[in-house]
Amino acid sequence: MKKNFRRAKTKVGEKSFNKIIKAGKILFAESGYHSTSINDIIAKAKVAVGTYYIYFNSKLALYHYLLDEYQDKIRESAREATKGLTSRKDIERAGLKAFIMYVIKEPLAYKLIWESLFVNEKIFKDYYQSFSESYVENLQKHLDKGELRDDIDLETVSFILMGIANFVGLQILFKDNPQETDVDFVVNETMKLLNRGLFN
Amino acid sequence: MKKNFRRAKTKVGEKSFNKIIKAGKILFAESGYHSTSINDIIAKAKVAVGTYYIYFNSKLALYHYLLDEYQDKIRESAREATKGLTSRKDIERAGLKAFIMYVIKEPLAYKLIWESLFVNEKIFKDYYQSFSESYVENLQKHLDKGELRDDIDLETVSFILMGIANFVGLQILFKDNPQETDVDFVVNETMKLLNRGLFN
Repeated sequence: MKKNFRRAKTKVGEKSFNKIIKAGKILFAESGYHSTSINDIIAKAKVAVGTYYIYFNSKLALYHYLLDEYQDKIRESAREATKGLTSRKDIERAGLKAFIMYVIKEPLAYKLIWESLFVNEKIFKDYYQSFSESYVENLQKHLDKGELRDDIDLETVSFILMGIANFVGLQILFKDNPQETDVDFVVNETMKLLNRGLFN
Repeated sequence: MKKNFRRAKTKVGEKSFNKIIKAGKILFAESGYHSTSINDIIAKAKVAVGTYYIYFNSKLALYHYLLDEYQDKIRESAREATKGLTSRKDIERAGLKAFIMYVIKEPLAYKLIWESLFVNEKIFKDYYQSFSESYVENLQKHLDKGELRDDIDLETVSFILMGIANFVGLQILFKDNPQETDVDFVVNETMKLLNRGLFN
């Protein structure tokens, strides 16, 4: 993914940069990528068109930036939540909870990634493929330590785990005003299945 | 979901109706709902604007129609594939395979449903909630027969199973020219996890 953006170098610039980011998030989520123009974004962000191009080469550049940011934040919240944990079982549980807590806070995240199906399918594919690859790499380490059963294809396991996280996340998002206790409940239920089905 | 469409009553009408359906599927999948106009659809379908309104009240009416058709076809292919099967394990396996075979044949299906996030979030939510509810109902019957463990919340199980089907489906769609043997492989791997994690 080629990054056609430049970060702000001054405090004032940073403020404009952040206003563009915020406007982009809202508009892409509300109307979708194709229905949003750079004009819409600068009008909402209240910045000049020239200011937009200081930071982003195109509308697509902003979309890529937001998607990367989302991916980074998800990974960061997982890293944060799993710090110090060593067993894959504990890491999986904490990571799942962190992911769901993140999408409650940032429900636009789903929209942004699924929207890529209409922006450019390759983005969508790359996004989940790269998640899958790092998942497989991590699972392999724990498999080598004997923590999970060794008779299931790890690529399939990675897609199963991503599918579970995304859809159990939807289950929570569909509730009115979901609370942390709701998240704990579905994480517990999910872990029952994984504890017996995946882990040794 | 209010259905603002009328089926064709003549052979000629049916031909026009089907041309509209086909054009709608292609355009919604290519550019998304918001970027597609009724004018685009009738131009692609090569029908007069008046003809469009004989069958559909609006652009949204066509979208609803397509989504309902997709949902019906998925359920139909699952019903077909599971005919005569009695154990939930066998039903789950056959249903998963039927779903993936369907999305290979009709990859636009994913786009159409995930696009609803931008058309109207309520459609998206209703779609998965109604799938979840009928899943729970069916799982309960098999739970009553002792076929699955009785210590996991069935709503969570339904979202887990939908998530697995959707993402293992993506895993297959991401391959170049996926074959039935690829589908059999991931279905087998997935069933290993479910056989131990969910079923008795």
